[in-house]
Amino acid sequence: MNRAAIVGIGHSKFGKRMDVSINELAWEAVKPALDDSGLSQNDIEFHAVGNLGFWSEELLPAVTVGEYCGFNSGSMKTEAACASGSAALKVAYDSIISGNTKIAMAIGVEKMYNSPNPTVIELIGRAGNYFWEFENFGLTFPGYYALYATRYLNEYNASEYDLCLASIKAHHYGSLNPNAQFQKEISYEDCINSKYIAWPLKLYDSSPITDGAAAVILASDKVAKKITDTPIYIDAQGYATGSANLSRREDFTGLNASKRAAEMAYKRAGIDDPKKSFDLFEVHDCFTIAEVMAYEDLGLAKKGKGVQLLREGQTYHDGKFPTNSDGGLKAKGHPIGATGISMAVEIAKQLRNEAEKGRQVKVSKGRALSHNVGGTGHYAYVTIFSRSD
Amino acid sequence: MNRAAIVGIGHSKFGKRMDVSINELAWEAVKPALDDSGLSQNDIEFHAVGNLGFWSEELLPAVTVGEYCGFNSGSMKTEAACASGSAALKVAYDSIISGNTKIAMAIGVEKMYNSPNPTVIELIGRAGNYFWEFENFGLTFPGYYALYATRYLNEYNASEYDLCLASIKAHHYGSLNPNAQFQKEISYEDCINSKYIAWPLKLYDSSPITDGAAAVILASDKVAKKITDTPIYIDAQGYATGSANLSRREDFTGLNASKRAAEMAYKRAGIDDPKKSFDLFEVHDCFTIAEVMAYEDLGLAKKGKGVQLLREGQTYHDGKFPTNSDGGLKAKGHPIGATGISMAVEIAKQLRNEAEKGRQVKVSKGRALSHNVGGTGHYAYVTIFSRSD
Repeated sequence: MNRAAIVGIGHSKFGKRMDVSINELAWEAVKPALDDSGLSQNDIEFHAVGNLGFWSEELLPAVTVGEYCGFNSGSMKTEAACASGSAALKVAYDSIISGNTKIAMAIGVEKMYNSPNPTVIELIGRAGNYFWEFENFGLTFPGYYALYATRYLNEYNASEYDLCLASIKAHHYGSLNPNAQFQKEISYEDCINSKYIAWPLKLYDSSPITDGAAAVILASDKVAKKITDTPIYIDAQGYATGSANLSRREDFTGLNASKRAAEMAYKRAGIDDPKKSFDLFEVHDCFTIAEVMAYEDLGLAKKGKGVQLLREGQTYHDGKFPTNSDGGLKAKGHPIGATGISMAVEIAKQLRNEAEKGRQVKVSKGRALSHNVGGTGHYAYVTIFSRSD
Repeated sequence: MNRAAIVGIGHSKFGKRMDVSINELAWEAVKPALDDSGLSQNDIEFHAVGNLGFWSEELLPAVTVGEYCGFNSGSMKTEAACASGSAALKVAYDSIISGNTKIAMAIGVEKMYNSPNPTVIELIGRAGNYFWEFENFGLTFPGYYALYATRYLNEYNASEYDLCLASIKAHHYGSLNPNAQFQKEISYEDCINSKYIAWPLKLYDSSPITDGAAAVILASDKVAKKITDTPIYIDAQGYATGSANLSRREDFTGLNASKRAAEMAYKRAGIDDPKKSFDLFEVHDCFTIAEVMAYEDLGLAKKGKGVQLLREGQTYHDGKFPTNSDGGLKAKGHPIGATGISMAVEIAKQLRNEAEKGRQVKVSKGRALSHNVGGTGHYAYVTIFSRSD
């Protein structure tokens, strides 16, 4: 089997981006990725675009982004709800390791502010089982995750104060990330006094509506070594699909799909103990409760003990499990189709020791993980990256 | 590199299917594919769902179809406009040949009648460059292809009568296909007297709005041989993306993306002369003019001579290049996301010598080709299949 390595990364400013079209926004990530790799558009043999796009003016972004960026390659759009970016990464990754393609690009882009609120909330809400839960019960995403939070807090003696610890950490690292939507620290009081969105989740428990783009260029091992001295390899991916119906979930304190995706990824990469294997975790913290569940689903803490990692500060850079060094979905922002690629960009940057001051993690194991969830565990993708070959 | 083979095929009835939900419609293809292969849902490690779906009630069909069908696999939705099915095939194919997956499924499904006309026409029309051509000039798909037809007929002394030959052939084979939307022969008069949709294209030059689903199960070579005595291999895929702007196309008598995709596929499969290599061509005849251009873009006829193949009947089963033995998009129907997979199902059926009486082509070269176009050549996928290993 061929190996695939990241040889170029690019990332737009995340935030409210009414100043650009979706194609222009994608270019803000594609251009630096090309520059970073020293490649030109003609070198890209296939490009996959992660995008949800219900709210877009352009419904075929793979074509319009590809043309605006000057590509001459084959293409498709991928959708796996909030894991659409990781699905695009899978397409590019498989294209390389299959041997069919030498150089491929995975782009994630989303322009959500185009859609007037609350339409965007309604459209995100349909990213589950429309007929039963959205139409009949009116559940939207804060509501979905509030169900998980309620159960978790009750079951494991945790509190809204505990969840705020995740938000404070996210805003701390976001404050150091020039591409983050929110670049300011928040206090305990800011979080705990913020308004309820869906009890017990508050404004500061929730990731924002975001416009943004991210891009990675992948190449086969042989080609990668000619392009860069710091290839970042994709060692393995795991993926799983969960029930579309929350009413069929047996567990409301974790995401079954996340667990299965992580197990598959660990097995494929030969990881025996995830607690000893990674310098950095990029996890899907669309809500603070999602970060706590991710700790447990990824095997970093036992059931009900994820919240303890927050209390002990173990997911700060000086703790055991540095997590979301870019501010995470909470502070960096969550432009749906871009999020999975944004995680890959951050990991490559960190494993190359190129992150901004204060954000750079200590790279000793040379390995990092991204955990990208679509819906409420409808989809899950776990990807393992490494610096050395 | 691993090889990938089709080991199971399934196909729903195409037509106006208000009797089923999108998930139920998908199951009508998935169930026979599982039965055909003797596999169960738990054997499927990844499933990709080709779907455009702007008009769907379920916006995340990969999850809802997967759950309804009882899968436990990873998943994503793929979109490449009318080539979305071939994009799903790429995902499943690459999953296998990369060595990551032993058994994967590509499903195509579309329910278009859910959307009230003319909304569906508007939404299809946006599958190009929305901002410039759709919004500014009001172009919809019949209009797009009418531009090609006008130019072609003028340039090469062809007529509306010639184009009707493609429609008559499509309806002939459709009449023999129990899954086709239209199962009746048409006469020359039916076609030439049908009303104009966009001059010079008439009703009988145009593929219909269709609901339908198709599914193929792919397995690695080693696994395939244990499952079936008649594996149908995918030898190669080629793909290309064309300009989203018709105003930037230099040629209105062919699709540049089709040509490039065909060249890539031929090169990868080691095909020197496509005219001598295939028992069957499944080409993207969304409009009759598209079939004529496909003959030329695939290298079966020189520029301007594609229409001659129709005049000579060379694309009937007893001609040199049997084409669209299932009735094609014109008579079988064109449920957008399903079309690429439907072509693969037909090819596997034909190469196994299992097609219905009158429809079965003579299998001597053991090789067939599918040509699936998204938009007006915005995307193109060409896939080469073979019976022997």
